[in-house]
Amino acid sequence: MRATVLHSAGDVRIEDVPDARLVEPTDAVLRITSACICGSDLWRYRDTEAEAEPKRMGHEFVGIVEELGADVRTLQIGDLVVAPFAYSDGTCDLCLEGLPTSCQHGGFWGWGDIDGGQGEAVRVPFADGTLVKLPVAPDDALMASLLTLSDVMGTGHHAAVGARVAPGRVTAVIGDGAVGLCGVIAAKRLGAERIILLGRHADRTQLGREFGATDVVAERGEAAAERVLEMTGGGAHSVLECVGTSDSLGTAIAITRPGGAIGRVGVPQEDTIPGARASFMSNITISGGVAPVRSYIEELMPDVLEGRIEPGRVLDHTVDLAGVPEGYRLMDRRESIKVLVRP
Amino acid sequence: MRATVLHSAGDVRIEDVPDARLVEPTDAVLRITSACICGSDLWRYRDTEAEAEPKRMGHEFVGIVEELGADVRTLQIGDLVVAPFAYSDGTCDLCLEGLPTSCQHGGFWGWGDIDGGQGEAVRVPFADGTLVKLPVAPDDALMASLLTLSDVMGTGHHAAVGARVAPGRVTAVIGDGAVGLCGVIAAKRLGAERIILLGRHADRTQLGREFGATDVVAERGEAAAERVLEMTGGGAHSVLECVGTSDSLGTAIAITRPGGAIGRVGVPQEDTIPGARASFMSNITISGGVAPVRSYIEELMPDVLEGRIEPGRVLDHTVDLAGVPEGYRLMDRRESIKVLVRP
Repeated sequence: MRATVLHSAGDVRIEDVPDARLVEPTDAVLRITSACICGSDLWRYRDTEAEAEPKRMGHEFVGIVEELGADVRTLQIGDLVVAPFAYSDGTCDLCLEGLPTSCQHGGFWGWGDIDGGQGEAVRVPFADGTLVKLPVAPDDALMASLLTLSDVMGTGHHAAVGARVAPGRVTAVIGDGAVGLCGVIAAKRLGAERIILLGRHADRTQLGREFGATDVVAERGEAAAERVLEMTGGGAHSVLECVGTSDSLGTAIAITRPGGAIGRVGVPQEDTIPGARASFMSNITISGGVAPVRSYIEELMPDVLEGRIEPGRVLDHTVDLAGVPEGYRLMDRRESIKVLVRP
Repeated sequence: MRATVLHSAGDVRIEDVPDARLVEPTDAVLRITSACICGSDLWRYRDTEAEAEPKRMGHEFVGIVEELGADVRTLQIGDLVVAPFAYSDGTCDLCLEGLPTSCQHGGFWGWGDIDGGQGEAVRVPFADGTLVKLPVAPDDALMASLLTLSDVMGTGHHAAVGARVAPGRVTAVIGDGAVGLCGVIAAKRLGAERIILLGRHADRTQLGREFGATDVVAERGEAAAERVLEMTGGGAHSVLECVGTSDSLGTAIAITRPGGAIGRVGVPQEDTIPGARASFMSNITISGGVAPVRSYIEELMPDVLEGRIEPGRVLDHTVDLAGVPEGYRLMDRRESIKVLVRP
């Protein structure tokens, strides 16, 4: 089968790889109908340190069940399903505690011998625990939005939950990428009335306004922090950190109101969190992390199906499998917010 | 009047200082009846960088109201009152949000022209906002425990709140100083059934056991983390970080169960929080900060008055004002957990 393989920085190719096939009785094999390129794929795409070996890419996908292991109980051949960006057994203590991203037997797509999602098919470990059935056809008009439940919409929601967004709490969202924009949707959905979006790409912040951002701050760093402190009279109660750099975390701490909370979902690019003293003096809670999106799919899906949220609008370009390398280039040059792949 | 002045590392003296007196109409002047030396005083006491100028010391005290400004409404001359380690107006937005340590007009004892608490008397700004009346006499047997409401008991409680201690959540407390020991009391009070105390001073951990610790881990660093992970099958849900070093925060992150929470109350000795990636991957919430103890005094006092908690047992030495320098030496050499001062 054909799938996306990253060889080194900037060198992503569509190649023949071994066909996806059942290995364990709890597996399923899906024919992928829709997938995405993720902002977090770009971190690897831009990493100039040589990759030890080629990497299979992609962790957001919807597909049709083609094969089922003997122990899979909840799915049928032909079901259309969405996968979260991490697979999980759904039965271990941590899954039962609502944290499938820390599943004792789980993992991430494209690591080790696990297929990536930007390809024709994928073996899904723990199909019962991992997959969620979609009540629509593969070509449904809502497919782009349903596909975001695999990652960016659930990740934006996780940031909002970690930041304790609620009615009456002034909310700021750092980052105008797909996750930040979904964070705006999530904040509005949880009742935030004032949502300040920090981003400097006019096309993206415009979409953020359509999603519910009431203010846009285009400055960066200290200037951005000063502006938000001034606008809010001392900071936002809830801050969604959707970038992942140390600078961005520093801005998050600077703009959080004393006693407020940060939901961080940007993949950390450094191994320390700055501002240990400032956050201590102001009692700022730093929450969030890798989003347990599997736990959020059932909660968010009705809002997509009933048209209350439209996170699929972040998918502003569509390519076929052969177009995936161009999709990476478009996102890398910020000519696309997020690319939809139809293999 | 006589008061404690820090001149340089290890050089703390009792000296004549200007008498405490009313300055603002919202002030009170207290005659101090009991005070403490704090573990956080030791950070300054040990700081070998020369102090720019002599510092007035002490931020935990009980006293009798001797003078009242014209605008003070809630106190009478002769009242016995406890002060939290920060003064606050009680009326600004942040005070009303429950965060008096971030009071827009507040501050800390011993900074600038504000008196310290290890002396004969003290001027209290915003007496109505800051002070809480005690329903006992100055020589009451409960005085040591009531005095801990000024800092260490409230700080231990804040750590437990930040760590989301609750029945069924395995709890670990890092640090066997007065705050850590009060953290054990607070964790038990909030319903923790299993409380693992990380500390290596047998006399202190023994007191911790009497306060409710069910297990003691005397190892440090990685060995301590391995031991707690093994004992708990993957980490504690709630971790109270009561030391403040980067190493201790690293241990806290290492022993927190995925999805768990850290309540940090140790004054940060470095300006970064380590383990940004590990805490992200495990969705560990880092909460806490400088404890808003003023907000906790009314909640905790009934438990002291009715004998349900005995935090005053951490005060294992008593000195008069002349004995304060010796009190610092005792604590610095770990020959005392915490020193009570009776001026």
